[in-house]
Amino acid sequence: MTSPVVVLIDSPTDPDAAPADSLRLVDARAPHIDVMDLGITRGDGIFETVGIIDGRVQSVDEHLRRFARSAALLELPAPNPELFRAAVELGIAHLPGVGDAFCKYVLTRGREGGPLDPTGYAYLDVNPDWTRERTIGISVVLLSRGYQLDVQTAAPWLLQGAKTLSYAVNRAVLREAGRRNADDVIFTTTDGYLLEGPTSSLVLRFGDELVTPAQSGGVLHGTTQIGTFEWGSGRGMRTGYRHVRVEELDHADALWLTSSQRLAAPVNAIDGRALAVDADETASLNAYLRGRQL
Amino acid sequence: MTSPVVVLIDSPTDPDAAPADSLRLVDARAPHIDVMDLGITRGDGIFETVGIIDGRVQSVDEHLRRFARSAALLELPAPNPELFRAAVELGIAHLPGVGDAFCKYVLTRGREGGPLDPTGYAYLDVNPDWTRERTIGISVVLLSRGYQLDVQTAAPWLLQGAKTLSYAVNRAVLREAGRRNADDVIFTTTDGYLLEGPTSSLVLRFGDELVTPAQSGGVLHGTTQIGTFEWGSGRGMRTGYRHVRVEELDHADALWLTSSQRLAAPVNAIDGRALAVDADETASLNAYLRGRQL
Repeated sequence: MTSPVVVLIDSPTDPDAAPADSLRLVDARAPHIDVMDLGITRGDGIFETVGIIDGRVQSVDEHLRRFARSAALLELPAPNPELFRAAVELGIAHLPGVGDAFCKYVLTRGREGGPLDPTGYAYLDVNPDWTRERTIGISVVLLSRGYQLDVQTAAPWLLQGAKTLSYAVNRAVLREAGRRNADDVIFTTTDGYLLEGPTSSLVLRFGDELVTPAQSGGVLHGTTQIGTFEWGSGRGMRTGYRHVRVEELDHADALWLTSSQRLAAPVNAIDGRALAVDADETASLNAYLRGRQL
Repeated sequence: MTSPVVVLIDSPTDPDAAPADSLRLVDARAPHIDVMDLGITRGDGIFETVGIIDGRVQSVDEHLRRFARSAALLELPAPNPELFRAAVELGIAHLPGVGDAFCKYVLTRGREGGPLDPTGYAYLDVNPDWTRERTIGISVVLLSRGYQLDVQTAAPWLLQGAKTLSYAVNRAVLREAGRRNADDVIFTTTDGYLLEGPTSSLVLRFGDELVTPAQSGGVLHGTTQIGTFEWGSGRGMRTGYRHVRVEELDHADALWLTSSQRLAAPVNAIDGRALAVDADETASLNAYLRGRQL
């Protein structure tokens, strides 16, 4: 078997479509997308990336729920969850059986100018080695997302809180981080609140409390962040969502950026200021996340 | 001949590539894009849409300059302008010879995970009939873009002023306009300034002066807006770019949203408040724009 593995999903929003009829394993080296697909011409679609640990997909229901929420925010027809669930499983069966992997699945509004006919597919590949990021950690810079904290209610058409294909900014901020000799980014609001990373959630520890910025600020509900709260609860910590001001970073005892692929990456510097990383604590967290069966 | 027409551009950022070797006219009904192309998975690319009137492409150099500027803002390699210029011409030669048309050309960062190998292509199709929009006009609503006027200097990583493939918001605002029984949108800043439409420039007339919001507010430099200023100058009007406050709408004598495909669409209502349209004036403007040879 070679990776990546590509599974096309016909009629991805047909609630009556069955996986046996809809899924097609295809040659990953051949093109499968129309040049006029709104996914490419307008970034008009949504996605999820799920982690695969030792051949088991993680948090599949949480991802499918968020995928459905993104579809609703973009007023796309609801994706048929059984098709996407089965596409991930079909893909896993054809991955090389070594190491960790990921599956990204996509739903677009389909071809420009035609009747609504959404495009769906999944692709899977083996993970790069994230040992360094998961142990030594990552340095981050704070970058403004340009919005105020109330953007999601004040201007829902800006699609904050949806996981869309329009991620050019999420890539541009990583280039800006590179220019500042940092590995990653924490987005802030123009009125001084912390949000999330461009492809990750933020978890802060204050003493024995884990905190993540509240979703009402326009952040995604992270599946790996949910797992991090579970780990914390198991260790007797309190956990909760609330708005977190930038100044509170001065009092945080630990920070992680959590995501399905990289799991928990401890933050070892913010805007050039070093932050201590408790290697045992993070190792415990990542071991929990790797073993999570949901 | 049938439309759409699709031209693939190999090595679109190779300054030494020649059109004869790089351009391929391909079957528009077949897929040509990789599922892992960053253009679709991250909206990580740029585009231009050029108008074609009676078989002649309009403002080709202005579009190519803006395309190069978008590439620089996204830190993409510079597109080879001769390849894109030739792709448009090749496409036109294969369009059905009736009515007006458009060409959209695209440059993406290429396939995820591999060495940098940008994707380039152009597609062309005949225009829909925009007689109503160009004569009776369009109703608009004001919607916040969520940013302050200084976003481009304060946070250049947000890519304002670049014409990117990450246009999900530009589509979402049109759905919001539809809910409010309007045809189109004028974006505003959170600090009370007018910007542009989601796929058009804004031109206001105050007496004998034409004004467009300044590019430093993060708006694109519109090629059809440039033509509108030329038309105004020819009629003895003053023209200029400056920041325009929302309240100034109360004193505007005319408004147009200008774009390469639709040309000048007069605004006949703002947030439900009717605005008089001078049919002769707009007809003169659109006749000038149709005849523009650049």
